[in-house]
Amino acid sequence: MATIDLNCDMGESFGAYKMGDDESMLELISTANIACGFHAGDPVVMRDTILAAKARGVAIGAHPSFMDLYGFGRRRIAGERPEDLEAQIIYQIAAMQGMATALSWPITHVKTHGSLGNMAAIDAELAAVCVRAIKAVDPTLVFITLPYSETMKAAEVAGLRVACEIYADRTYDDAGMLTSRQMEGSVIHDPQQSVDQVVSMVRDGVIPTMGGRRLPVEAATICVHGDNPHAVAMVRALRTSLAAHGVDIAPFAKPAI
Amino acid sequence: MATIDLNCDMGESFGAYKMGDDESMLELISTANIACGFHAGDPVVMRDTILAAKARGVAIGAHPSFMDLYGFGRRRIAGERPEDLEAQIIYQIAAMQGMATALSWPITHVKTHGSLGNMAAIDAELAAVCVRAIKAVDPTLVFITLPYSETMKAAEVAGLRVACEIYADRTYDDAGMLTSRQMEGSVIHDPQQSVDQVVSMVRDGVIPTMGGRRLPVEAATICVHGDNPHAVAMVRALRTSLAAHGVDIAPFAKPAI
Amino acid sequence: MATIDLNCDMGESFGAYKMGDDESMLELISTANIACGFHAGDPVVMRDTILAAKARGVAIGAHPSFMDLYGFGRRRIAGERPEDLEAQIIYQIAAMQGMATALSWPITHVKTHGSLGNMAAIDAELAAVCVRAIKAVDPTLVFITLPYSETMKAAEVAGLRVACEIYADRTYDDAGMLTSRQMEGSVIHDPQQSVDQVVSMVRDGVIPTMGGRRLPVEAATICVHGDNPHAVAMVRALRTSLAAHGVDIAPFAKPAI
Amino acid sequence: MATIDLNCDMGESFGAYKMGDDESMLELISTANIACGFHAGDPVVMRDTILAAKARGVAIGAHPSFMDLYGFGRRRIAGERPEDLEAQIIYQIAAMQGMATALSWPITHVKTHGSLGNMAAIDAELAAVCVRAIKAVDPTLVFITLPYSETMKAAEVAGLRVACEIYADRTYDDAGMLTSRQMEGSVIHDPQQSVDQVVSMVRDGVIPTMGGRRLPVEAATICVHGDNPHAVAMVRALRTSLAAHGVDIAPFAKPAI
Repeated sequence: MATIDLNCDMGESFGAYKMGDDESMLELISTANIACGFHAGDPVVMRDTILAAKARGVAIGAHPSFMDLYGFGRRRIAGERPEDLEAQIIYQIAAMQGMATALSWPITHVKTHGSLGNMAAIDAELAAVCVRAIKAVDPTLVFITLPYSETMKAAEVAGLRVACEIYADRTYDDAGMLTSRQMEGSVIHDPQQSVDQVVSMVRDGVIPTMGGRRLPVEAATICVHGDNPHAVAMVRALRTSLAAHGVDIAPFAKPAI
Repeated sequence: MATIDLNCDMGESFGAYKMGDDESMLELISTANIACGFHAGDPVVMRDTILAAKARGVAIGAHPSFMDLYGFGRRRIAGERPEDLEAQIIYQIAAMQGMATALSWPITHVKTHGSLGNMAAIDAELAAVCVRAIKAVDPTLVFITLPYSETMKAAEVAGLRVACEIYADRTYDDAGMLTSRQMEGSVIHDPQQSVDQVVSMVRDGVIPTMGGRRLPVEAATICVHGDNPHAVAMVRALRTSLAAHGVDIAPFAKPAI
Repeated sequence: MATIDLNCDMGESFGAYKMGDDESMLELISTANIACGFHAGDPVVMRDTILAAKARGVAIGAHPSFMDLYGFGRRRIAGERPEDLEAQIIYQIAAMQGMATALSWPITHVKTHGSLGNMAAIDAELAAVCVRAIKAVDPTLVFITLPYSETMKAAEVAGLRVACEIYADRTYDDAGMLTSRQMEGSVIHDPQQSVDQVVSMVRDGVIPTMGGRRLPVEAATICVHGDNPHAVAMVRALRTSLAAHGVDIAPFAKPAI
Repeated sequence: MATIDLNCDMGESFGAYKMGDDESMLELISTANIACGFHAGDPVVMRDTILAAKARGVAIGAHPSFMDLYGFGRRRIAGERPEDLEAQIIYQIAAMQGMATALSWPITHVKTHGSLGNMAAIDAELAAVCVRAIKAVDPTLVFITLPYSETMKAAEVAGLRVACEIYADRTYDDAGMLTSRQMEGSVIHDPQQSVDQVVSMVRDGVIPTMGGRRLPVEAATICVHGDNPHAVAMVRALRTSLAAHGVDIAPFAKPAI
């Protein structure tokens, strides 16, 4: 029987500001990527999110970002030395790992956030920075990466374990990358088409591309979102469909407790 | 032969901003308290400071603070829940510990910064918060605390190891606390008097107080400053005097490498 | 016919973070206090809030705070020099005034936020700081202050125009101050009692106190909140009651366009 | 007799952090660009810098930046909507103008900082954003821009007055732009060559380019730096040379007091 993980970004509140419906999503997912205080999150939010995930048996990981609270990590920032970005990522993973360990629910993985993730996926130097940072803190952590990305390649070269992440509602180009959002047909709106694509990737290990190619993939986790009621409903529907196709939901790695 | 540690705050630069003459001080001290990014410091400064300390064999620790870059951690901040302050301190220690471990120079201790330290020294609830935070991350860490302070008492109750910190240039009241800076005679300007006081505390285990009492103390470390050329010269003189009195300089704890 | 203003804090979103239902509240109030970027708000939120208020003819003012985004301006911060706090308040009012003027909807007033407001209300020195800051930017601005507060006294001494602010849902002590939230009976839960109190203050110019006194008051504006659906409903009910008692809603000052 | 202005960035300290030798530079320059709190500066530093400039009769202006304290405004930030950047620039100019006016030393101009300035100089859309922001706050402000830049063109199209800024120690390419620092020969190290170039630009209105062209220029101000003792000495030498060539130092615009 096939198994897949569902991962979602969370812990993105800050101080008095609330973001996302983490409580609802934690009932639906198997792995949570928790913000580390650079694009979102703060120590209190981190603690509360770790404990909420632990209470439901949801695996957790660090979700580092550019230092950019105002831009929520979505602005593209250039001009820092690679070794300095590496230090920033190490800091975030270390803070998250230490706090999670203190709360007896150790992290299993790292997923980069927003612009950092988007830029590293197509920039070999930035990808290498992310991989070095993760290995420096803990070489047993899993790195969630997109298939055919520079991050995945850098992780494999460095011997870092990856969890290959797929999307249910996005199409792929012939290079195996997500079709740009600027392009027609980049987002899948038809629920049946979305389910068919996921089942193809999870059960058959194949990405169907826009150009008609069939690229091999070892899908480990599906990226889902919970930042609006519609998104939560979509995840519910996805779970139901996966169950109907005999696909189980389980984390790709379990906390080492 | 008596031994004492010299500790100094450092790593308090931020981005393009430089603070203190860390390079000079690292030649003179045995233990460094490194800012964790809340009142000062950033991941790059932390990395550079850890490596500079490691290169000289200087022991290091986390120097957590209120979240207050603008006020350099010197503003008194009230109105947060104790458990939220605890999360903030855990975050800072964890970030520092993880980064230091990644650089193969593990931290040995924690010292609270500025207003957080001043307030915790006289507030039992806040002292307990600090102690819980340290224990949550790593119960083997040493807590630098003032003699007769609430922080020292809280650490002892909790079974956390303390390093008792004394001042060379400050007088003590009959309760064993530092005389308030607002009071006449709180600061010792006479170098001989300063050395005599330190030797009394380090070799004889006695704090001479303003009221003429002699309070027992197990001095482990002397707090020194390096934020101006005069301060650096004072530390040099203190080292010479200590050597003349047969007192060795050595860290109260060594990195577990 | 009696007239009263309804004022509400708004523009408290920040970057990707949303706070409050400003759109709904702008339909109900006559004056908006807009955050200036220190406890909440950012230039984009300020611009959008100014334009939304302008579109509905709602008067606006600056809502300065301690520099404390993490604590949303609710933490009590001590240890700054009065002249430095004054500079911080001047900066915020100036930024708000300049942006509002650029958008052709000039500010009419200033209301201090959160802990800054609470502390200044009972601290003569801090109250004087606020008054000096407002006068330095524009002595024609109105200062929203609580009756019998240090801020009101400082404004009157300095010749600064005040708009006396009352609460519909809070009781008053015999000194004319709001009863502490820690005390029994501080919050009025009975809608009828709330309306009776407001009508007494607005139409009769009398604050009924917990101790049975009747203190004179020149009520100019009622503080309302819009941070939850229940709060919005309460403001709707208050407007209906005021209309039934022949009390009109209008801003205490109009933008000088 | 020819006249030229010397402008320098200042007020770039933040909280406890000091940056630059503003006191020395204020003795040498005629115009100061003061940081507005986004890449550097805070309300207290702004107040102190305004008053120090006023005491010496040095004209002042706003020096807005990307919101990037950590990167000191030097990181290239992309991904914001033009109208949102415009709001950020308006906010900074307004804060600076309001504070300066409150201190009776009104600003005369705006100069964009770091990456914002560099990016706007070659990006027509970003240049237009800067010009709109300045005009929105006060269309009588002067905009310091590089010759042949997009910012200068945008200002001229919009009818905004410009002060054309030249460099004493940088060479120019045939398009009238500064030669890239990555290129050989971009920086002039020979003092005589530096003075010759300045005199050519100021007295003859001609930029000598690397390719041997002579481009017309209406030089209004020379950009100088004061961030190290060597820089201060260079400005002193430049002043002496200018005097020897009969060139007076005076601000391009005087505060409207």
